[in-house]
Amino acid sequence: MINLSDKILEETIIKRPNKSYKGTFGRITLIGGNKNFAGAIIMASSAAVYAGAGLVTTMTDKNNKTALNEALPEAMYADYKKITDNKALIQNADVIVIGPGLGTNESSEKILRNVLKLIGKNQKLIIDGSAITLIAKRKIKLPQAKIILTPHQMEWQRLSGIKIDEQNYTVNKKCQEKLNAIVVLKSHRTEIYTNDKCFKNTVGTPAQATGGMGDTLAGMIAGFIGQFKQTEQAVSAAIYMHSKIAEELSKNQYVVLPHQIINNIPYYMKKYQKK
Amino acid sequence: MINLSDKILEETIIKRPNKSYKGTFGRITLIGGNKNFAGAIIMASSAAVYAGAGLVTTMTDKNNKTALNEALPEAMYADYKKITDNKALIQNADVIVIGPGLGTNESSEKILRNVLKLIGKNQKLIIDGSAITLIAKRKIKLPQAKIILTPHQMEWQRLSGIKIDEQNYTVNKKCQEKLNAIVVLKSHRTEIYTNDKCFKNTVGTPAQATGGMGDTLAGMIAGFIGQFKQTEQAVSAAIYMHSKIAEELSKNQYVVLPHQIINNIPYYMKKYQKK
Amino acid sequence: MINLSDKILEETIIKRPNKSYKGTFGRITLIGGNKNFAGAIIMASSAAVYAGAGLVTTMTDKNNKTALNEALPEAMYADYKKITDNKALIQNADVIVIGPGLGTNESSEKILRNVLKLIGKNQKLIIDGSAITLIAKRKIKLPQAKIILTPHQMEWQRLSGIKIDEQNYTVNKKCQEKLNAIVVLKSHRTEIYTNDKCFKNTVGTPAQATGGMGDTLAGMIAGFIGQFKQTEQAVSAAIYMHSKIAEELSKNQYVVLPHQIINNIPYYMKKYQKK
Amino acid sequence: MINLSDKILEETIIKRPNKSYKGTFGRITLIGGNKNFAGAIIMASSAAVYAGAGLVTTMTDKNNKTALNEALPEAMYADYKKITDNKALIQNADVIVIGPGLGTNESSEKILRNVLKLIGKNQKLIIDGSAITLIAKRKIKLPQAKIILTPHQMEWQRLSGIKIDEQNYTVNKKCQEKLNAIVVLKSHRTEIYTNDKCFKNTVGTPAQATGGMGDTLAGMIAGFIGQFKQTEQAVSAAIYMHSKIAEELSKNQYVVLPHQIINNIPYYMKKYQKK
Repeated sequence: MINLSDKILEETIIKRPNKSYKGTFGRITLIGGNKNFAGAIIMASSAAVYAGAGLVTTMTDKNNKTALNEALPEAMYADYKKITDNKALIQNADVIVIGPGLGTNESSEKILRNVLKLIGKNQKLIIDGSAITLIAKRKIKLPQAKIILTPHQMEWQRLSGIKIDEQNYTVNKKCQEKLNAIVVLKSHRTEIYTNDKCFKNTVGTPAQATGGMGDTLAGMIAGFIGQFKQTEQAVSAAIYMHSKIAEELSKNQYVVLPHQIINNIPYYMKKYQKK
Repeated sequence: MINLSDKILEETIIKRPNKSYKGTFGRITLIGGNKNFAGAIIMASSAAVYAGAGLVTTMTDKNNKTALNEALPEAMYADYKKITDNKALIQNADVIVIGPGLGTNESSEKILRNVLKLIGKNQKLIIDGSAITLIAKRKIKLPQAKIILTPHQMEWQRLSGIKIDEQNYTVNKKCQEKLNAIVVLKSHRTEIYTNDKCFKNTVGTPAQATGGMGDTLAGMIAGFIGQFKQTEQAVSAAIYMHSKIAEELSKNQYVVLPHQIINNIPYYMKKYQKK
Repeated sequence: MINLSDKILEETIIKRPNKSYKGTFGRITLIGGNKNFAGAIIMASSAAVYAGAGLVTTMTDKNNKTALNEALPEAMYADYKKITDNKALIQNADVIVIGPGLGTNESSEKILRNVLKLIGKNQKLIIDGSAITLIAKRKIKLPQAKIILTPHQMEWQRLSGIKIDEQNYTVNKKCQEKLNAIVVLKSHRTEIYTNDKCFKNTVGTPAQATGGMGDTLAGMIAGFIGQFKQTEQAVSAAIYMHSKIAEELSKNQYVVLPHQIINNIPYYMKKYQKK
Repeated sequence: MINLSDKILEETIIKRPNKSYKGTFGRITLIGGNKNFAGAIIMASSAAVYAGAGLVTTMTDKNNKTALNEALPEAMYADYKKITDNKALIQNADVIVIGPGLGTNESSEKILRNVLKLIGKNQKLIIDGSAITLIAKRKIKLPQAKIILTPHQMEWQRLSGIKIDEQNYTVNKKCQEKLNAIVVLKSHRTEIYTNDKCFKNTVGTPAQATGGMGDTLAGMIAGFIGQFKQTEQAVSAAIYMHSKIAEELSKNQYVVLPHQIINNIPYYMKKYQKK
């Protein structure tokens, strides 16, 4: 277990190349947000945009379109019930996020299955929230791709079968290897299991224990891996920065809200950018 | 009557435990906001989120969904006409708020009755605004629960039968005991009647005499009692802080608007947190 | 013609009485905003709220409800096509504003006529924008009430029959007397004609020559006359402050937008409040 | 090729005349934003308003109305599928922008053709984004008007037939002359081809390589040419300032988002205004 420090940011967040255009910084498609959980996909999408993603498309319930457009004019919208009419939005993406606010009913499952069918093996796929639960409960097979799973401890129990109080490095690592995915096990001190190394978050605050934080993190990870080549490093940097911002803000705030973290991403990325 | 002072904040707002997650800080469900009064439930829900509630669900008219999602992505949404399809949202909540912008017509009454039926005796229930009027007018029986009533003087007259100019400590206390609830009697200097002690607010400003302040207060109370164990104390701390923020802001503002109070809650909670 | 100066603010904006509640500061109902001009009624309503109005209701096209709720949760909403089902919203208001974004088609006219029928002689009625044009073109009789008309020069030509280049103190005053209303003749240096005195604005900047400024002014006037007893004075103070804020902001901005003026109202009112 | 510098701003952004009204600063109509790309037309419209346009009307998909109203109350709305019912919105505009988020399907094409039919030869017409692609692909004839085309390199290839790696001053200039339009060829260092002179942008940052920047630029250009007489100069000033703001903000931000540039336009215009 490598303890994360500011170094991960300085190593990851490179100076942007002068000759670049929006395509250089990643095409990201996020899928989630049922009628009841619009906010989850809005926060995830916002985090991706504020983390520097070049082009962001949000596929969500049609009832969430207006709120998305207002909160984040930078994102494009598509109806997540029309995945098969919009294959290119999945297939041309560099990074796909599925799960924030997706829900776990039959309709959610159908959307999830439709997305997974379209994923190519060179694409990066973040599976978050209800998508993890669905995969665990319905025993859905993971596609061939560069997969990042972001379960909290209960979702990890569902997926791995390891009970929360039995979760430890050895069993988690073994299961991660079997899954052949990066596993971000969220807790008070989040752990990141990869094929190579494992990392442990060292910052964070109980002020960030509030609804929407996981969605925000998933979007940040997407933004980072859309821009920075080394995926394990980019995932770790996103997790560390997410908590770092919360910790800093918590010096003046009893609770830190997701949108406040999101708004601060561009400033913190600049501050910790590789010199 | 105990005069409230900064002490109530320092005694109530404890440092958050390091090992905590969003569930630690309360599951709150707010019900209200008919087609005409969307803002009331949006402001109440926002106050709960900014006061540090762990998980917030807002049950409101379906026409208010988009405005809620945009104003407060941190809140989950459900249709308040489908209470019985969503029993868990009421039954699993630590705190329920009913009333802000609920209205007083037949449909409002039906929603209120459906909610009250589901309340368990260990749940905390804040009854505010039009819900108080409905209970008074339709003689609806209060459920077995930890109830907080937040009437202004006219609503208290309707509920208690005590005319505004006859409202005083002795008669109010007697009626509070009969109701077996915490009564927050809102006025220029709000009074809090509990089974144990009674408190009087000592701060506040006419700059806060504007539409939506009561809704904001109801949400703040919910946020506080979702986090802090001693309910009477948490209620009093929320009331005192609500006015305290308004008083501070009024040094530079002729009128203080609800959303400005809401935005300031995290900073004031930090400032007055137990050392 | 009395030249307005900071004095009008200091004389008008009194310290709020300690024992007050939201009703003390005026019930205001604004009617306008057809499907195409939602922004006009949103800006007018916002200006009323930020100027300190106690309770604000906005009657507008049902397609504007969500945008209103989001932009201004402090305002209540009603459908302006249901005036007759909501008579109380007009009849119980202290101040009514009709016109911002109302439009000039048959449906607009019907709404205007329905509102005018309900106005009582002690109510204050601000007639703005398209409502002035409709009254001029369809020769609609003004009701018995305390009327404030806020035409720009072309609307004044339509209403008074006086061509723009023939508009001067003498003819304007004469027509104002015949109308028995306060006339706010908007231009580079707005003039206010009342039965008693006439005032001329002395501040303002071309930076404020942008769409929505008139709507904002109408809302500010409503907020002021809902709070301050002497109507002529309150109208003049609102006009002066509107331009004063714009002038101040224009020191750092090439163009000053309506919402920027609105956000600043509470701070300027505090600054210029009667000592 | 003239290198742009701060001088272009100082020469272009004149002090506003004291006797002016909103009409003085340009009537601008923007057409775009299909159901999936609402944000594009919202950002373009916002940029026009914040750049000082007097009156802004946005014609877009009816599903985008609420998001537009909330994000930008200063803009009027009309349904872009009803161009022929609203001819005046095109014919009375000083500047028309077509393209941001318009899309390239049959319905988009029909809207484009309907707009082009109504353009008069003295009107200024900015053709952006998908409108350029449609014109290239469907071989649509440009109308007689003062046309500004704002292609990025791939769109320029589609329109001119010149492949990206063959695009250079000589061939671009020749094609621009044939088109008899101002051509803004967007890249890392945007070039502006006019009948008279050619300009090259000298500022800008990879931090601005993010979705929505082109839409924002189109709106800024519209705002500038609606106010400032010399069109070539106004176009160049808008392009230079757009990058200048991004460059300044990028000192503290890793990525600069379109809405952040938009919010800063009034301050930068003031700062660089002709002395």
